[in-house]
Amino acid sequence: MASWDAHIKDELRLVEEEIARSVGSSQPLLKEIAMHVIQGGGKRLRPGVAILSFRAVGGEDIESVIKVSAGVELIHSATLIHDDINDGSDTRRGRIAAYKKYGIQKAIITGDFLFVQGFRLGASHNSREIVEIVGDACTAMAESEILQLNVERDSDLPLETYMRIIDGKTARPIMASAMVGAYFGKGSAGQIDALGEYGLNIGYAFQIVDDILDIDGQEASIGKPLGMDILDSKANLPLMIAMHRGGKESERIREIFNAPKKTWEEIDEALALVRFSGAVDEARKNAADFRDKALSALDDIPPSKYRDGLRELAATVLERSS
Amino acid sequence: MASWDAHIKDELRLVEEEIARSVGSSQPLLKEIAMHVIQGGGKRLRPGVAILSFRAVGGEDIESVIKVSAGVELIHSATLIHDDINDGSDTRRGRIAAYKKYGIQKAIITGDFLFVQGFRLGASHNSREIVEIVGDACTAMAESEILQLNVERDSDLPLETYMRIIDGKTARPIMASAMVGAYFGKGSAGQIDALGEYGLNIGYAFQIVDDILDIDGQEASIGKPLGMDILDSKANLPLMIAMHRGGKESERIREIFNAPKKTWEEIDEALALVRFSGAVDEARKNAADFRDKALSALDDIPPSKYRDGLRELAATVLERSS
Repeated sequence: MASWDAHIKDELRLVEEEIARSVGSSQPLLKEIAMHVIQGGGKRLRPGVAILSFRAVGGEDIESVIKVSAGVELIHSATLIHDDINDGSDTRRGRIAAYKKYGIQKAIITGDFLFVQGFRLGASHNSREIVEIVGDACTAMAESEILQLNVERDSDLPLETYMRIIDGKTARPIMASAMVGAYFGKGSAGQIDALGEYGLNIGYAFQIVDDILDIDGQEASIGKPLGMDILDSKANLPLMIAMHRGGKESERIREIFNAPKKTWEEIDEALALVRFSGAVDEARKNAADFRDKALSALDDIPPSKYRDGLRELAATVLERSS
Repeated sequence: MASWDAHIKDELRLVEEEIARSVGSSQPLLKEIAMHVIQGGGKRLRPGVAILSFRAVGGEDIESVIKVSAGVELIHSATLIHDDINDGSDTRRGRIAAYKKYGIQKAIITGDFLFVQGFRLGASHNSREIVEIVGDACTAMAESEILQLNVERDSDLPLETYMRIIDGKTARPIMASAMVGAYFGKGSAGQIDALGEYGLNIGYAFQIVDDILDIDGQEASIGKPLGMDILDSKANLPLMIAMHRGGKESERIREIFNAPKKTWEEIDEALALVRFSGAVDEARKNAADFRDKALSALDDIPPSKYRDGLRELAATVLERSS
């Protein structure tokens, strides 16, 4: 089967050009730091979802959606830079994190710069709807980040709170991308909602797979050590399932998770216990359910190679190893 | 004479209400951190300039300018939070800095949240002109911040570079506020430019006075220790003038300024030398020149109590002690 982005390569190339143009600056260092992150091997999931949604509802005048797609990716890059500072991550996709290479000060400013450039692109079409969709997603992201910090080290976190975190952090921005694409493609209100539903559920699935990869992935593929969420005492679905399960092993995982400091040996021990508990399979089942919901939402969209691309993307999200 | 904001008290109250509404969040902590900064005794210079400019060109439908004025103040607050992290400042206007009270992580996220909420208000009127004016100012701020970091510890900094820094950091945002106000007030192109020119020059004067207060102010009034720019090896006009002057005292100031670490005794010594050099008076003369340029720009604006307010503000900027 064709890759999910097989039929939108040209559009994605235009997005890259728009991104490069938008991070141009009288201060070359701003562009350098921005490009360090932007060219770090991201999947361009958000622009891809926007463009496929645009095409899937029959959109033709591509210019509008290119700008907003680039804007959404710039905002995403801004959050990655600030998140890495907040998470204390040394690497991002196998490359040194921006703040580690350039210092926290310059990383904060570059993140701010990318927020501004992204929002400018999002607002460049004088469309209140687009500003609201993108703005709502950005607000949800900030709220989710603060919620995530607030519940760190909580081994009894309810699943509902976990869902609220991944809703704002990952699902809303992808939902916004899909809606923006469908909006510019002049989709009907029903189609915009259906594609939003698709994006939201793809987002949930994507984040759960991210969580699984942190427990059970290949370090070489994901470009960072496994067990970062245990190290940082952060919400992670398989980890939460294993901690909620009860019993001696569950207790030991909690003990390690709750500790303010932990050794890599302890993290490896917790990883092994989570894997052994079957929690990874259960989490994967959850991700598959969200993927299925995303696929169902596409039933209201007429068949096309772009709808096929959205379907293929749903499969890729679940099967990805990086 | 009346205070500069005597005739726009009602409008400024509406701005406060809009700000409070905009930082409402499902996460109460976001609002708490935001309000810690917003209620920290800021002068509301940017909204004030916007509203006076709006009224001075005959603007009547106040609703539009209130939202954007609140937006500009939120963006300003966002930069204050991030700046304090970058400067390592312990206090802001006599209160503990947000990142010191809540931690760097939550402060970064709250800054991002305020950027988003500010930009949303700025974009809420479907006006490409407004998005461009506010966007240009935000881009200039980020560029100026990175430039400032790049030239830290440069005791030979050309005056031209200093002007570029304060242009982006302080003058452009105030210029943008004036232009936005004049635009919404349906001022002519000439009036919008004239008020922009006013804002730009008020901004230069404001920043230079800020620099002077760091050298020669009252700690109790400005709410932080004197000599922060010496401590941080940052561009500051009287300091630069004194370092460019040559001679033994100049050399000693440079020595202290350039040192990666310095004691408070050394900072006090440098402060005394800068004060003794006459550089403060020279800097004050520069600030007065910019104020005069700002006042001249108002000649193209018809007389009114609002134009008087802008004139009064120009005087206040120069005479302020906090």
